Amino acid sequence: MTPARLSLNQWTTRRWSLREAVDGCVRHDIHAIGLWREAVAEHGLAATAKLVTDAGLRVSSLCRGGFLTGPDLGLKDNRAAIDEAAALNAACLVLVVGGLPGISPGGGPRPGFSRDLAEARVRVAEALALLAPYAAERGVRLALEPLHPMYCADRAVLSTLGQALDLAERYPAEQVGVVVDTFHVWWDPEVLTQIERAGERIASYQVSDFLVPLPADTLLGRGLMGDGVIDFGPLTAAVDAAGYRGDIEVEIFNADIWAADPDEVVATMKRRFAATIG
Amino acid sequence: MTPARLSLNQWTTRRWSLREAVDGCVRHDIHAIGLWREAVAEHGLAATAKLVTDAGLRVSSLCRGGFLTGPDLGLKDNRAAIDEAAALNAACLVLVVGGLPGISPGGGPRPGFSRDLAEARVRVAEALALLAPYAAERGVRLALEPLHPMYCADRAVLSTLGQALDLAERYPAEQVGVVVDTFHVWWDPEVLTQIERAGERIASYQVSDFLVPLPADTLLGRGLMGDGVIDFGPLTAAVDAAGYRGDIEVEIFNADIWAADPDEVVATMKRRFAATIG
Repeated sequence: MTPARLSLNQWTTRRWSLREAVDGCVRHDIHAIGLWREAVAEHGLAATAKLVTDAGLRVSSLCRGGFLTGPDLGLKDNRAAIDEAAALNAACLVLVVGGLPGISPGGGPRPGFSRDLAEARVRVAEALALLAPYAAERGVRLALEPLHPMYCADRAVLSTLGQALDLAERYPAEQVGVVVDTFHVWWDPEVLTQIERAGERIASYQVSDFLVPLPADTLLGRGLMGDGVIDFGPLTAAVDAAGYRGDIEVEIFNADIWAADPDEVVATMKRRFAATIG
Repeated sequence: MTPARLSLNQWTTRRWSLREAVDGCVRHDIHAIGLWREAVAEHGLAATAKLVTDAGLRVSSLCRGGFLTGPDLGLKDNRAAIDEAAALNAACLVLVVGGLPGISPGGGPRPGFSRDLAEARVRVAEALALLAPYAAERGVRLALEPLHPMYCADRAVLSTLGQALDLAERYPAEQVGVVVDTFHVWWDPEVLTQIERAGERIASYQVSDFLVPLPADTLLGRGLMGDGVIDFGPLTAAVDAAGYRGDIEVEIFNADIWAADPDEVVATMKRRFAATIG
């Protein structure tokens, strides 16, 4: 039996097209999917909305907006992402807020890049102030995702759940929530306290394991639950105690998993989910 | 002119023997050195103490004790490290507290390893309670070093300065202090607040830059100041405002720097230190 709240984040089965991922969910009796904007654009927004609705799937999240630290705060692209999330009836739009201005994700600093971390964080707050009302008008919930501190320079200057909550709490909980992603937050000595503090602000719970040692590309250091070092029990219990009742997404960036047969990955994922998350 | 508080951590010029590193300090007009236990053991403890004293060098730190999370809490080895720090008149003994039991530094989990992070942190506290009085009797100051969260599983379950201070504050400041290492803490949204809180507990200030992207072996992701993404100004100002007046160690783990001519590394290090730290 498939756990009722399991959601397949489509990046876990990256070889699958959007249609294949939706078919895979149906075939494997999974009732929710986390979508990526690139894949939605390829399939077409309206066609995707119809496809997932016809398949009876919930859209547990749309990944991702963000990258708010550049000179234009990424406003245009994020407004488009919000419109897409509304059209898809996604439970939230995940925001990966961006790193230091002038550093590309996974790349090195470009000439003239900024080392001003405090200023980058101010930009995130400013962009959020502009985007939150736009999202609220469209019934879209924004979900701030703190990323592991090893991505602070190039992907997200938001590094802890506490920091994300400081920002989110300026808005109603239904407008701006947070993502709890085990890979990013498991190490944090404050994580259980901050999950409790988050309460109804938890907009998404994403699970994957932290591999040790990390691979050469640290972005791909995620594994299926059980393949790494995370103790999922206390984290899941805290998320549960905080009142979160939404879908639980499995989102794995991993070269070996991407190379494997997606149907086998999904079958293993279901077993591991049942064993570690419940 | 050499900045008066600059200390060469000998791992920065790892190709040099201990004697060569001491000679290098004298030749480059550097008045303090951070020593590593392996090198001290090779040269001999008494001989090292005489060598650095005769050269007029301060020992800014001995690296490193710790790895307290194993079944025996590492007590025997740490008592030896404390004795060595006393013999060398080191300003502090740096403690890298260790990761999850059963995971070797830089290695993968061994069969039967533990995922219980909370329990590992309890072990650190227990070991510290046994070691702090031993160190105090010998006039040695222990320095808890929070490591970057990417090393949480295999090197240090102590990941933030705030967490280190929670532990250190159970003891007098002259018995148990903390290390502020820019590479490890630069990303922390609380870092400036926690440096202020640390005050006289700052036992060591270590500087190196955070490289982006990280190399395949993340342990070697440090660079000379200016080669990475850290803005040293606010961190150094906060350490200064907290009242720290001790030596400032340059500690760099980097394959290219280790392969380079150590005399050139030291010359560049002095210039970069003057430009970024003052």
